Amino acid sequence: MKKINVAIVGASGYTGIELVKLLLNHPKFNLFYIGTSSGEESIEKLHPALLDIATFKVEKSDANEIAKSCELAFLALPHKTAMSFAKELLSLSVKVIDLSADYRLSLESYEKYYEKHIDTENLKQAVYGLPEINKEKIINAKLVANPGCYPTASLLAILPFKKYIKKNTPIFIDAKSGVSGAGKKLTESSHFVQANENFVSYNALKHRHEPEISEHLVSQGVENKIHFVPHLLPLTRGMLVSAYMQVDEEFDAIKVLKEFYKDAKFVRIRNEAVSIKMTAGTNFCDIYAVQKDDILFVSSSIDNLLRGASSQALLNANLMFGFEEDLGIPKIAYVP
Amino acid sequence: MKKINVAIVGASGYTGIELVKLLLNHPKFNLFYIGTSSGEESIEKLHPALLDIATFKVEKSDANEIAKSCELAFLALPHKTAMSFAKELLSLSVKVIDLSADYRLSLESYEKYYEKHIDTENLKQAVYGLPEINKEKIINAKLVANPGCYPTASLLAILPFKKYIKKNTPIFIDAKSGVSGAGKKLTESSHFVQANENFVSYNALKHRHEPEISEHLVSQGVENKIHFVPHLLPLTRGMLVSAYMQVDEEFDAIKVLKEFYKDAKFVRIRNEAVSIKMTAGTNFCDIYAVQKDDILFVSSSIDNLLRGASSQALLNANLMFGFEEDLGIPKIAYVP
Amino acid sequence: MKKINVAIVGASGYTGIELVKLLLNHPKFNLFYIGTSSGEESIEKLHPALLDIATFKVEKSDANEIAKSCELAFLALPHKTAMSFAKELLSLSVKVIDLSADYRLSLESYEKYYEKHIDTENLKQAVYGLPEINKEKIINAKLVANPGCYPTASLLAILPFKKYIKKNTPIFIDAKSGVSGAGKKLTESSHFVQANENFVSYNALKHRHEPEISEHLVSQGVENKIHFVPHLLPLTRGMLVSAYMQVDEEFDAIKVLKEFYKDAKFVRIRNEAVSIKMTAGTNFCDIYAVQKDDILFVSSSIDNLLRGASSQALLNANLMFGFEEDLGIPKIAYVP
Amino acid sequence: MKKINVAIVGASGYTGIELVKLLLNHPKFNLFYIGTSSGEESIEKLHPALLDIATFKVEKSDANEIAKSCELAFLALPHKTAMSFAKELLSLSVKVIDLSADYRLSLESYEKYYEKHIDTENLKQAVYGLPEINKEKIINAKLVANPGCYPTASLLAILPFKKYIKKNTPIFIDAKSGVSGAGKKLTESSHFVQANENFVSYNALKHRHEPEISEHLVSQGVENKIHFVPHLLPLTRGMLVSAYMQVDEEFDAIKVLKEFYKDAKFVRIRNEAVSIKMTAGTNFCDIYAVQKDDILFVSSSIDNLLRGASSQALLNANLMFGFEEDLGIPKIAYVP
Repeated sequence: MKKINVAIVGASGYTGIELVKLLLNHPKFNLFYIGTSSGEESIEKLHPALLDIATFKVEKSDANEIAKSCELAFLALPHKTAMSFAKELLSLSVKVIDLSADYRLSLESYEKYYEKHIDTENLKQAVYGLPEINKEKIINAKLVANPGCYPTASLLAILPFKKYIKKNTPIFIDAKSGVSGAGKKLTESSHFVQANENFVSYNALKHRHEPEISEHLVSQGVENKIHFVPHLLPLTRGMLVSAYMQVDEEFDAIKVLKEFYKDAKFVRIRNEAVSIKMTAGTNFCDIYAVQKDDILFVSSSIDNLLRGASSQALLNANLMFGFEEDLGIPKIAYVP
Repeated sequence: MKKINVAIVGASGYTGIELVKLLLNHPKFNLFYIGTSSGEESIEKLHPALLDIATFKVEKSDANEIAKSCELAFLALPHKTAMSFAKELLSLSVKVIDLSADYRLSLESYEKYYEKHIDTENLKQAVYGLPEINKEKIINAKLVANPGCYPTASLLAILPFKKYIKKNTPIFIDAKSGVSGAGKKLTESSHFVQANENFVSYNALKHRHEPEISEHLVSQGVENKIHFVPHLLPLTRGMLVSAYMQVDEEFDAIKVLKEFYKDAKFVRIRNEAVSIKMTAGTNFCDIYAVQKDDILFVSSSIDNLLRGASSQALLNANLMFGFEEDLGIPKIAYVP
Repeated sequence: MKKINVAIVGASGYTGIELVKLLLNHPKFNLFYIGTSSGEESIEKLHPALLDIATFKVEKSDANEIAKSCELAFLALPHKTAMSFAKELLSLSVKVIDLSADYRLSLESYEKYYEKHIDTENLKQAVYGLPEINKEKIINAKLVANPGCYPTASLLAILPFKKYIKKNTPIFIDAKSGVSGAGKKLTESSHFVQANENFVSYNALKHRHEPEISEHLVSQGVENKIHFVPHLLPLTRGMLVSAYMQVDEEFDAIKVLKEFYKDAKFVRIRNEAVSIKMTAGTNFCDIYAVQKDDILFVSSSIDNLLRGASSQALLNANLMFGFEEDLGIPKIAYVP
Repeated sequence: MKKINVAIVGASGYTGIELVKLLLNHPKFNLFYIGTSSGEESIEKLHPALLDIATFKVEKSDANEIAKSCELAFLALPHKTAMSFAKELLSLSVKVIDLSADYRLSLESYEKYYEKHIDTENLKQAVYGLPEINKEKIINAKLVANPGCYPTASLLAILPFKKYIKKNTPIFIDAKSGVSGAGKKLTESSHFVQANENFVSYNALKHRHEPEISEHLVSQGVENKIHFVPHLLPLTRGMLVSAYMQVDEEFDAIKVLKEFYKDAKFVRIRNEAVSIKMTAGTNFCDIYAVQKDDILFVSSSIDNLLRGASSQALLNANLMFGFEEDLGIPKIAYVP
């Protein structure tokens, strides 16, 4: 079978290199085009880990060039730049999976938390690419808004308990991410000496992933207000979400999880606490829950760069092109 | 002035060595006796970092020997062993600061969460050694129950908001500790390969520090139920507590904190997120809070081995012997 | 094509799980048998990262059972236990790749540095499994002694410069390994609190990998004495070897390396300093060298658990069964 | 006794904050002036760890202002800027301890490895501030060139063996430093994601500390050529130097060390491998050595920011002002 040519636009960051790594191993997608904002580098100069593995030229990203040869483009770009590329690519009949925030929110929310949206037409058609809730829509989508890392882990943890959560009570999400989540940019908080042996919250109750989580909970029927505080872990990759909520009745939380995810290939329910190490390197979301009286604690673990970005994007691509969901999707963790 | 002779019983663990280090620098206490369960070692063999600094013989702990020369003993022992020593030392008129859990709880709670108590007489007189709430009692105490690390950080974070917390709503405490909190014992979860690049909750909703926090909140008039989940951070020392609660009205959270702690020498209120690095190496508890609508998020940071154990114990000793509270208490963090 | 059934004996350690992970992905070997010293567990209980991926029963290792179905066994056992299993398996016509030290040294050296050898017959036939120097012999081997991690990185760094190294001058090897190299056993030096933020040499000039390096240098014609000091790095996986030697003439060190390894699929020559991160997760050995006057510095980087153990073992298996050398061998690093 | 007023010029970096921390605790120096290149900040804004501890205004560094009140200035500045300040301060009769490289080398070496020297007059009078070899000169110095971190650890390791080292053989120094050694500046190599779980050499055989080590070995009678390769450790603070050399005869290396340092207050000789954790937080240099045949391995450990910079500077200040050498100098490590 002929492979499908695909492009990565924005290959210089961490989600970019993860996409390159995944696509190099994919049996049915052919990584044909790699673009960055500057171009003109070899892939091994951009990502020295790829020396002697791949020999791509890195292009200055150009939608018309992409459209000549590729059926799909992954956008690993900053928000705003993403929607500008997406709009152009879609108009040239290239399918798009956007890893930025540009198509994840309603217009109203987007313009409240980000800025003016410049592609409101496509925004209406965009499908939120969380396969556990939107698989059918993703299969038919031309534009997938790939979920944020925090929303992925949070939604997967909370949704199964929809019918048990007490109405009008708050849900608290205490989330922790490795430093790769902050990107490659040089900042004080990602300086080794600052981040190492340290732990700190940031944007408490004000992070832009809060409306993303909230909106998609509401769309699934969970109306409770959520309150979200992310923290920075002194490790490279991985994310753990601890969610706290009040529930109406006693139930077997593990059983509820197993039932809810009985057909999910990339959610694992564990009988003991989930940990970052078990999912780092994979597309799995591991979930654990424990109830005490009217309180439910749910903990979920993902690799922020894979399930929280690049491998989830690739899984969405598999769905959009009619491939097996798990084709080329990593399952084996980096342990030990 | 003649120095006060003091003893450390149980000097082989992390809180033990911290006490040794603090007492070596203290101007009015004289570290006279260092005991472990086995004895017969030099201090530099027990703690090689102390080579050429101190030349103590390490004794096999013996209450009668201690009573001959020391006015105060710090017990850095496992629970149960601690109360057995405390009982004997108190009967010999040695004052005791116990770093274990043995005198922190009511008899009922202790026997529910730990085991049968063997020193119920002294338990009645024991003072919970959190100086910000019990200073006067500590000054007059013969037996101080030094608070646990999680309770220290949690109580200091929550108590200032007593009058604002909505009645009958739950308080959630998502706490994170460095690996030193788990002690020196060799366990799978403290193996480097397991703990490094990892993060995991443990004893969710079932940790024995939950009743300790709860009881002392109640004793201060906060009747809300608390729900406590600790996590293990991939770093050596430090603790961060994130507390979530519902409140009745809007207020200036930073101002409330500053007012509540206006006389506290070892609580610092920060206008931005507190971090572990700012307090590691000190007795400070740094606190930050932010309110949004009816939700309050409070974050506190301490050094789990110092404010969460040994330096708080020493500060209690200062109070018990009429010294300046901050005498020999570390204020300058290990940063960078 | 029918797959070749293979066994892992000793699957509970780090090299064991790495073998499991690699074999699960291999297109021509079928992981048929997984044994440990105790048996009777599921693989996901032994290695929770494998939950929902593999469903093996873990057997109590038994050579006769293995011989019934498997053509090849990987031994990831302590030395001594390994040779006892190898002997039995070979007598049952099962090929063996031994990851222990039991067949890596001459009889004389082995008995000097380890203990009495109990399988001297097979020792004579054993092939040292460093593919860059012994490919033809490996292809025809029934028993491969898989090289140690330090020897792999050291030999690959030094051998290319054989004809340049000054006779009768010492070669110094300053080697550094991540903590996974010390195995899963609970020891003081691998306790997180001890290893984290620390760095220390061990067994300086006395490590048992020194004779292994030395013997195989000599067998390749490098007669210089080597002096070896390993150190423990505060990271999970990876190894860097820094070798220092005196040379007779000026030459282009990078060119020498590129020429020597022009046919090697798993050695990469870099023009700048090699780092652990570039090889962690792969079978690559990255090498860099710089000369100044009569001094040569060579630095090599490998993943201690893969190129230093399990993936090199699998590559040897590929050769022994006539498969492409790089079949199922990992090339893409865990970066970022 | 009236305290001596001192200034820190260049207080924004890591050695700057270490100096602040040390001087806040010093019984005879009064930290009177803190300057940076920009000024106009409070110390707690510059270094948030100092909140509620110190209330200095941070000045825009001005030599004339300093000369009005201070008898001594510590310069924690980049090279070149340092000599410009030193020259001016010395002309105003302020004693200077310069932590940069500006006065550590001979004019010839300085101009070869750095740039044109603009204060050749004072360069002639500068004393190299390694107390173990230059104590008398330091006592009488007006200008002390505080040694680099690598040279401190290397010289202290090698000098004791002066009479045993074989003439005309090379000495190899394989050195490893924590990331704080690279300073506060945001660079790719100090980004957490790059440095964490990584290890790499840099400037192999070309580092500017090589001539510094070499010159001061020669001045002490060790004429052997040295070859120096530094590496970057994934930890915040600490440095370990591994030195390899050929020797003429057998001797008891530990005894040689103990004899050589019998009067040294800040060198500890250990009978087993030295580690970074034992010295981090102190001014100690721990040394271990082992000999095998004609080969000697020496390993030394220091805190790169303290013994390698700020506490050594303070000790030099003690000597210059006739105080006890160890006054206010940290001896107790940060362990655990």
